Amino acid sequence: MQLLGNAKLAVIDGKSGHYTVTDPSTLVMEGGRIAWIGDAAALPKRFAAAPCRDLGGRIVTPGLIDCHSHIVFGGDRAREFEMRLEGAGYEEIARAGGGILSTVKHTREADEASLLASALPRVDALLAEGVTALEIKSGYGLDIETEMKMLRVARRIGQERRVSIRTTWLAAHALPPEYSDDRAGYLRDVVIKGMDRAHAEGLIDAVDGFCEGIAFTQGEIAQVFDHAARLGLPVKLHAEQLSDLGGAAMAAKHGALSADHLEYLGADGIGAMAASGTVAVLLPGAFYTLRETQLPPVQALRDAGVPMALATDCNPGSSPLSSLLLTMNMAATLFRMTPSECLAGVTAHAARAIGMGDRGVIAVGNRADLAIWDITHLAELSYRIGFNPLHARIYGGEFA
Amino acid sequence: MQLLGNAKLAVIDGKSGHYTVTDPSTLVMEGGRIAWIGDAAALPKRFAAAPCRDLGGRIVTPGLIDCHSHIVFGGDRAREFEMRLEGAGYEEIARAGGGILSTVKHTREADEASLLASALPRVDALLAEGVTALEIKSGYGLDIETEMKMLRVARRIGQERRVSIRTTWLAAHALPPEYSDDRAGYLRDVVIKGMDRAHAEGLIDAVDGFCEGIAFTQGEIAQVFDHAARLGLPVKLHAEQLSDLGGAAMAAKHGALSADHLEYLGADGIGAMAASGTVAVLLPGAFYTLRETQLPPVQALRDAGVPMALATDCNPGSSPLSSLLLTMNMAATLFRMTPSECLAGVTAHAARAIGMGDRGVIAVGNRADLAIWDITHLAELSYRIGFNPLHARIYGGEFA
Ligand SMILES: [Zn+2]
Ligand SMILES: [Zn+2]
Repeated sequence: MQLLGNAKLAVIDGKSGHYTVTDPSTLVMEGGRIAWIGDAAALPKRFAAAPCRDLGGRIVTPGLIDCHSHIVFGGDRAREFEMRLEGAGYEEIARAGGGILSTVKHTREADEASLLASALPRVDALLAEGVTALEIKSGYGLDIETEMKMLRVARRIGQERRVSIRTTWLAAHALPPEYSDDRAGYLRDVVIKGMDRAHAEGLIDAVDGFCEGIAFTQGEIAQVFDHAARLGLPVKLHAEQLSDLGGAAMAAKHGALSADHLEYLGADGIGAMAASGTVAVLLPGAFYTLRETQLPPVQALRDAGVPMALATDCNPGSSPLSSLLLTMNMAATLFRMTPSECLAGVTAHAARAIGMGDRGVIAVGNRADLAIWDITHLAELSYRIGFNPLHARIYGGEFA
Repeated sequence: MQLLGNAKLAVIDGKSGHYTVTDPSTLVMEGGRIAWIGDAAALPKRFAAAPCRDLGGRIVTPGLIDCHSHIVFGGDRAREFEMRLEGAGYEEIARAGGGILSTVKHTREADEASLLASALPRVDALLAEGVTALEIKSGYGLDIETEMKMLRVARRIGQERRVSIRTTWLAAHALPPEYSDDRAGYLRDVVIKGMDRAHAEGLIDAVDGFCEGIAFTQGEIAQVFDHAARLGLPVKLHAEQLSDLGGAAMAAKHGALSADHLEYLGADGIGAMAASGTVAVLLPGAFYTLRETQLPPVQALRDAGVPMALATDCNPGSSPLSSLLLTMNMAATLFRMTPSECLAGVTAHAARAIGMGDRGVIAVGNRADLAIWDITHLAELSYRIGFNPLHARIYGGEFA
């Protein structure tokens, strides 16, 4: 049991979604959970003997949650980034081994230890900013063994570091060259058979796909989702990033936890998401890196009451981003989300997007995953660029 | 005396501006300077007894230089940032005390100790990324006492931290309300008289101004520059950020070290800068924060051989940015500068922009200000977003 004293707690108004901070309060942590919150003078006797850390009036938010990442991968794409800026065309880059298939190649070649070693510094960058939960997708193997290897590494990250990991099966990310003439075969023999195997090994918390002209159709993804439903696995979808294929509405009809990207989302998709309670996960790092101009429909999502989450989308191609604070600033600057929306996007709404109902909000009974900040106003978390005001991180009731 | 062994050194090709890294080499530091560079087998006997730190093949660049900052200021503008995103208009924000005058008010009210205390965490964020030299401007006092107070704080930063500080007199930043009817009086009684006083106290390394419709005209700035010339002080200018007033060409004619911002710079200005050797300091943080769409003429500057530097422009309004690595990524992503150009922009060219001829390039005789990185390719410094791969910083020949 441990007390946090003199702590200003960030609380979200369920209706308006607006955050305020409480007067200096006491928060009791017991068994990794939040056991009591209130005025120091009203502290129940049974907590009175527990050690108390005085936070000096600092602001406390829920631990941050990165609800969409591809943080486990082999190789990097810095040289490709450079070639493009030096004027190389796509063909030249492809000939030099660039693009997603270069990441697939390096991920297939890497063993678990080296995938883990390369991912940990990126994970550590997130944790240094107060992240306490992280979703990690497969999707750079595109064969069963490598997809499973990626998710084993994801699980290992949760043992090596004090962070909750949610794994996502994303074999339906791209079609590998060896199946270029056999889409149905890939879906059947890798995406679905692999799902069975990985699920049997306890490697899958959710199932994802990429619904796009360059990836899979709505109908193909629906087969994957139907199989996930048979296994009792929740689903989510990369949808409407480059065009509107109706992926978000299809995902919503499958009760998806989230639909992600959504720059080209239309009114039908928004309505379907609102009806199903599907979270809109916006990924400003990819928008920024790809210099997109089509903004996601933030005002329409707001009007429809669709919860908006934010994530790094950390990946070596379209979003080599490992800062969730910077993601918040990008969402404010580029998407015109308010600082309160940005904070909800990496806490309460991010928790919903990965189906973790016991966190993301400071409330009795929830996990005691917290971030303590050297700031005077919550808006500073979105306002500053490239500055980390974290004072301390608490994971499962312990300073971590 | 100290040796760095097994160090891959980033060297710039003077002609192409392209960086390459050497094979693992030895670098000797003596008296705060680089005394020798070469193959370990060729190390002169007189250095052989010095302690050697094996860098394990790590890449070494010059220490990074942030050549344009307003990092000393009172207050912050997070609440104003939030109000704007929540839909407040400019009038409402002004009524709530927002805008640059809010920073002027808070800077005037703050004492030196509190200005120092608020600036140091921002400075520390820069140093953590390998910055070894930092330019700091006045310009939020707009009265002599406060302008001098800001530069005294800037000098103090150079005592409190292991970083070289260059101070810049920027009283010609904005017209304060008390002079709103007397522009000539402000220039005479504050900008120029203050320059004399601050110079007498040794507070000024360079003189700057803001040439823009909302600030000062070319003719007004020319008076300021003429006075700087009488005092033997180098000049630089905020020019062509929002419109083309010919400021850069005027600055070049005054032999300015740099012209900064430059989104609206035209062919005349580029020609004048090329002729005078004036550095173009580009500030992608402000471009990003203000969501500008007018790109600086990077290709034309490149074609004309004008050296391009990059800086944070760290300030509470248009660029609350305290990461020079992120500045490099923004320059690559938004301005399409190559990773080599980005690195030159925060090393060799940044040194020129602040008139420090003895740094920014790894060469015998130069100051031993270095950054050691956990990367395998220099392009990673621009490619990654929100990740700091610094292994160690060396300031004046010592690990700092
Ligand atoms: Zn993704
Ligand atoms: Zn400036």
